[in-house]
Amino acid sequence: MKNTQIKLCSWKQIDKSIRDLATDQVILIIDQIIWQLYQDNLKELLRLQGKQVILWKAPDGEKVKNFKEYETCMEFLIEKGVHRGAHIVAIGGGAVSDFAGFVAATVLRGISWSIIPTSLLAMIDASIGGKVAINSSFGKNLIGAFHLPSQVLIDLNFLETLNKNEFQSGKGELVKYCFLNQEIYVQTLKEGCSANVIEGCARYKQKVTEEDFKEGGVRKILNLGHTFGHGIERIYNIPHGEAVIWGSVIIFLLFERTDHLKDLVALINSLGLDVNTPPWYQKSFPLEDLMDFVRRDKKKQSNISIDLVLVENIGTPVIKKFLLKDIEEKFKGKLHELRNFSIKSFE
Amino acid sequence: MKNTQIKLCSWKQIDKSIRDLATDQVILIIDQIIWQLYQDNLKELLRLQGKQVILWKAPDGEKVKNFKEYETCMEFLIEKGVHRGAHIVAIGGGAVSDFAGFVAATVLRGISWSIIPTSLLAMIDASIGGKVAINSSFGKNLIGAFHLPSQVLIDLNFLETLNKNEFQSGKGELVKYCFLNQEIYVQTLKEGCSANVIEGCARYKQKVTEEDFKEGGVRKILNLGHTFGHGIERIYNIPHGEAVIWGSVIIFLLFERTDHLKDLVALINSLGLDVNTPPWYQKSFPLEDLMDFVRRDKKKQSNISIDLVLVENIGTPVIKKFLLKDIEEKFKGKLHELRNFSIKSFE
Repeated sequence: MKNTQIKLCSWKQIDKSIRDLATDQVILIIDQIIWQLYQDNLKELLRLQGKQVILWKAPDGEKVKNFKEYETCMEFLIEKGVHRGAHIVAIGGGAVSDFAGFVAATVLRGISWSIIPTSLLAMIDASIGGKVAINSSFGKNLIGAFHLPSQVLIDLNFLETLNKNEFQSGKGELVKYCFLNQEIYVQTLKEGCSANVIEGCARYKQKVTEEDFKEGGVRKILNLGHTFGHGIERIYNIPHGEAVIWGSVIIFLLFERTDHLKDLVALINSLGLDVNTPPWYQKSFPLEDLMDFVRRDKKKQSNISIDLVLVENIGTPVIKKFLLKDIEEKFKGKLHELRNFSIKSFE
Repeated sequence: MKNTQIKLCSWKQIDKSIRDLATDQVILIIDQIIWQLYQDNLKELLRLQGKQVILWKAPDGEKVKNFKEYETCMEFLIEKGVHRGAHIVAIGGGAVSDFAGFVAATVLRGISWSIIPTSLLAMIDASIGGKVAINSSFGKNLIGAFHLPSQVLIDLNFLETLNKNEFQSGKGELVKYCFLNQEIYVQTLKEGCSANVIEGCARYKQKVTEEDFKEGGVRKILNLGHTFGHGIERIYNIPHGEAVIWGSVIIFLLFERTDHLKDLVALINSLGLDVNTPPWYQKSFPLEDLMDFVRRDKKKQSNISIDLVLVENIGTPVIKKFLLKDIEEKFKGKLHELRNFSIKSFE
């Protein structure tokens, strides 16, 4: 399997990379909001010398990741005469690249593709590792494949038009990498969400996913903060990155890692993340709903136990198996602390 | 990549293999005509000790290979709680295994599967090699993946209820293998469509597809008789296997291989294949339509040339590139012979 080439570059370099693709057929799958914001640059791509360019604008966000859009886009490309040497370029956030990657994985049994991520979350997470998918009406990312892009070209200028909520969400995910990798941790404390840090996260994820492409082992460490975070995201309908923060808080509280709660708070401050109290603050903690969610997790492989990612030291994550009933007991002993947790109280 | 295990076996052995699968969740995707014919045996599979069994009946034939059925089946499986350790068992002809394999390739980003082929064509061809797909409204197999089944379990008893047209179609495809492999050729002349011959074809295709999983090189020899055969199949709406016979006749006539035309006739007789004259017999040969079709071939990689599979000697296929205009010239010099060709005239 050929690895993905990850590059931080300017729009000019991206434009050149696309012109230089060794194909006579380029398919642009672009988030329509990105299209509107950057059409002056993007329109240039519609006229590539010696290449047929096919443009497909994706409805904004997760809305594109369904069967209907998938069928519409596939039939559109086939009608336009897509051939096996064609190359798809996805330009947008994680939803657009998940979608475009699934199209690339399955049209004519798979063609090559690249990603130009335009959100922070896509730059450090979604665009790396080749997981592509659309959503089922019963849950996210349940229809998909593993299909590595040949290039991920990151132009940080796209972050200038990213809305605040999405930026915050990306920073929440970034905090996860700080606990997984010492270097990212140190750099983030020093520089915040810098170009170095963003590139470091992308390369770190690439390293982990190369070691374990199909998530049989070590790739699972990327779930730090996600096992409970996904449940919190769904229960309170909050942004993904914020939910990952609260998922990490839960892990650190359950396993009594006050040191890591302090690290977390320092990182939040360094990143300028605008979070203080969890959605359950001074209300009752949604233990039953959360455990229900965990029991229905698509990644679980048993009905009685669950793998959790813990942090031994910064940069040393460990995967440990726990009985669901033991986890529930742990929660019961920590409900008071959970209910009263706030970032400020740890500063 | 783990290779597929191919086995000729009885229904009793198949039943045991399914019971012994190392999973607690078995998904049966069964051709509904096969279900009706064999429900006494198949119903036994619905009660597997210690396993959840999920049944999905597929509409007959190519009808299942579309987006609507794909979405319906995927949502059904997800609603039923399909997990990553689940195993799909496809029971039916090539259409059902193409469909079930695409479901297996994409549900939860890919789960394991097996095939129990019930038609001759599926036993010797469609079930081997991991190509899975559904159809676009613009053409067959344009949406798909490569996803190897872990087992192909062949019970020849299914052939007893195969209708004559489909049996003939399978035999037409079988003739192709005789030209690709000397041993199959000798055995077929001696034994007709025997168990040995069927197993030999399946194992031969496995060997070729293992060498070249994604059809970059040698796998192309399996297209012998298909480049023009597919066009003839579409133009006259005749069974696939018969079209492969006429596709081979065209190749042998164009390249003046009277010896192979005689071999072909001997094989047809040995297999009891009920063909005599091509659909264009003593009418005008559909040269323009055929060349149009070839120009739109999804496998073509150039607009001006085409790869053809020729037979140097029995067992020695070669792939050669030709300019489309040269092929057209060749046809023009052979129109009279094409128009008057019949199997009987070569006996």
